[in-house]
Amino acid sequence: MSHAPLPPLPARFADTSRSVVRELLARTRDSHTISLAGGLPAPELFDIDGARQAFDRVLRDDAARALQYSPSEGDPRLREQLAARCTAAGLRTHPDQIVVTTGAQQALTLVATTLVEPGDVVLVERPSYLAALQVFALSGARLVDVPSDADGIDPAALDQLAREHLPALLYLVPTFQNPTGGTLSADRRREVVGIAERRGFRVVEDDPYRELRYSGAPEPTLASLADGEHVLYTGTLSKILAPGLRAGWVRTTPSVHDALVLAKQAGDLHTSTVDQAAAAVYLDSGRLEPNLERARRHYRERRDALVAALAEALPPGSTWTRPDGGMFLWVRLPEGIDTDVVLADALARGVAFAPGRTFFSSRPQIETMRLCFATYPPQVLTEAAGRLGEAVAAAVDLGARE
Amino acid sequence: MSHAPLPPLPARFADTSRSVVRELLARTRDSHTISLAGGLPAPELFDIDGARQAFDRVLRDDAARALQYSPSEGDPRLREQLAARCTAAGLRTHPDQIVVTTGAQQALTLVATTLVEPGDVVLVERPSYLAALQVFALSGARLVDVPSDADGIDPAALDQLAREHLPALLYLVPTFQNPTGGTLSADRRREVVGIAERRGFRVVEDDPYRELRYSGAPEPTLASLADGEHVLYTGTLSKILAPGLRAGWVRTTPSVHDALVLAKQAGDLHTSTVDQAAAAVYLDSGRLEPNLERARRHYRERRDALVAALAEALPPGSTWTRPDGGMFLWVRLPEGIDTDVVLADALARGVAFAPGRTFFSSRPQIETMRLCFATYPPQVLTEAAGRLGEAVAAAVDLGARE
Repeated sequence: MSHAPLPPLPARFADTSRSVVRELLARTRDSHTISLAGGLPAPELFDIDGARQAFDRVLRDDAARALQYSPSEGDPRLREQLAARCTAAGLRTHPDQIVVTTGAQQALTLVATTLVEPGDVVLVERPSYLAALQVFALSGARLVDVPSDADGIDPAALDQLAREHLPALLYLVPTFQNPTGGTLSADRRREVVGIAERRGFRVVEDDPYRELRYSGAPEPTLASLADGEHVLYTGTLSKILAPGLRAGWVRTTPSVHDALVLAKQAGDLHTSTVDQAAAAVYLDSGRLEPNLERARRHYRERRDALVAALAEALPPGSTWTRPDGGMFLWVRLPEGIDTDVVLADALARGVAFAPGRTFFSSRPQIETMRLCFATYPPQVLTEAAGRLGEAVAAAVDLGARE
Repeated sequence: MSHAPLPPLPARFADTSRSVVRELLARTRDSHTISLAGGLPAPELFDIDGARQAFDRVLRDDAARALQYSPSEGDPRLREQLAARCTAAGLRTHPDQIVVTTGAQQALTLVATTLVEPGDVVLVERPSYLAALQVFALSGARLVDVPSDADGIDPAALDQLAREHLPALLYLVPTFQNPTGGTLSADRRREVVGIAERRGFRVVEDDPYRELRYSGAPEPTLASLADGEHVLYTGTLSKILAPGLRAGWVRTTPSVHDALVLAKQAGDLHTSTVDQAAAAVYLDSGRLEPNLERARRHYRERRDALVAALAEALPPGSTWTRPDGGMFLWVRLPEGIDTDVVLADALARGVAFAPGRTFFSSRPQIETMRLCFATYPPQVLTEAAGRLGEAVAAAVDLGARE
């Protein structure tokens, strides 16, 4: 008998190219390129001594437990710490509501596994977080984008689209959004929650940057404005402690909790026991707040440096956001300048960024790009903006000549 | 406008109850119950000093990298170590073939995401690993079980079922199987690979226990017998270093590699950077082999103790396996004795086991149970077997009276 061919991969992999941002990260690693493409926290702001002490304490005092299998829901001590932090920030939370995940990325995957069926509509911001778009696309969802402006998504448009599409979910990053850095206003938060409750869909409030605020006053979380069923809230220690630990979480709702734990169990049994234990010890140590205060001070300075440098470097007709927090700002170049084209030249000049195209689920705005201001000190950001300005100027000249 | 109800959860969660084994683990934690239900490595055999030194070295010498985001494929140094271990065991492997996963459990989830579409047939052993059945069921697969005996699955039946169902995958644990402890014979390994190549389906060779051999000679891996495309091989450090680290891997094939990396990226971006770095340092330290030798010595003794105690404790007509390695043996009680019923009484007597029912994708053999012999020292296993024998005797008496 001759050999039969292997079956092809599912269609969801046919048109899903690998993340441009991750590919760029790979290309710029160990090079002299200044990469504003990724979303890397500044490594020199990690509390290395604190992390080392936390791991050592866990492996000194509690190693047999820390190296063993552990519950799918997560380390009880870490869940207590995370619930207490939510509650202190105005979102009343019981530890039993928390499911620890392998980073906030896994939180999104588990939400998709738990709530999305192929063909379901998932509403997303326009633009939206790239890796979330990937997760929902892999789950077979049909992505529909909701018009957004400087204050976040437009409630009237959301209501209309929800009526038309009966979505399974609305996914959003309401605070210091990835990629724009924008924040949904308090009034709109209330409106969005009201629409979800009236129209009968769930909201996934992805909130990784909340504690990185450099100016302005905090808005309430959507989860705190909703009844107990309509908003799933996800958070992470990646931006405030260290991303290498992959410690995120979901604040679940009663109707979703057990299914989400089952998805977690099937997904990876549980998140690293030793990392969870070390995170719990660290959060208990009192070192987080002063370290976070230091990080905020540096990130504020970096935001200001990049914003100031862009004003010098970019051509007339360019616009950019000045976020009150987070790690990213969003640039829009003059009409017709394709940032995918600019990128090749920028890389040749030693600077990388994330082209805006990949953050749109449809009809991309080709003139946009995302810049991360968190990874480098001010003088490097100024240098990067200069190189970026040269690459943009070259693209503008080229456009003028054509 | 009145509130619309929330959409129900997908049907895949309607009939998927949470793992009985995990529920039992939860019930028996921190109690005086001797639990042979889980698959916990013996914590006193962990190389705690080695693990502590590895983490400390990573956080002393390389902390900024160890706490940062890292490539989805995994830590290059760990991938080199894992590829070298595969090659040394007769499975020639290049580091670029290895994708590090958050435990072998995630390896299965990523394989399902990459290769299974709703409605696809996945062939599984009868009985098979519970959590794998869960993963494939969640992915919407139709599970079809292949008759198996003491030498593993029956190739003639496999060929017939593959012809009938055109499966997407065959999933198996060919060495020291979970739950039976059985090993697929060398001849059958060749036959299974030949059938996969002729019929055009992929095999997932899940091999967590290979290095825990206490008697007999190693069989070749299926992956080493196949061409480069038909067998995906998954492994883990959970059973030889520590499960708390969640360090597993897939040895991919060319047609699957990129899609699997994309699924990994969407799944959790990457496995804990610090855990991967510590695992690489540990594997490089030379401490694994002597520690593994010690573990094998103890586990062999435990296997022998439990096998001997069962001969004393179980009623005539009971049978059990005596595996050459791994962590589990498989008991079959006299016909009509339902181990789900025995379990309640056993728990009252202070011993837990995994009822066999959950390891069958269809038509369960209700008289079966899985016992883990790895977690406790011999005298505790002897005590556990005695308590189990009492519970079984009570069930036999009850059956006789009815």
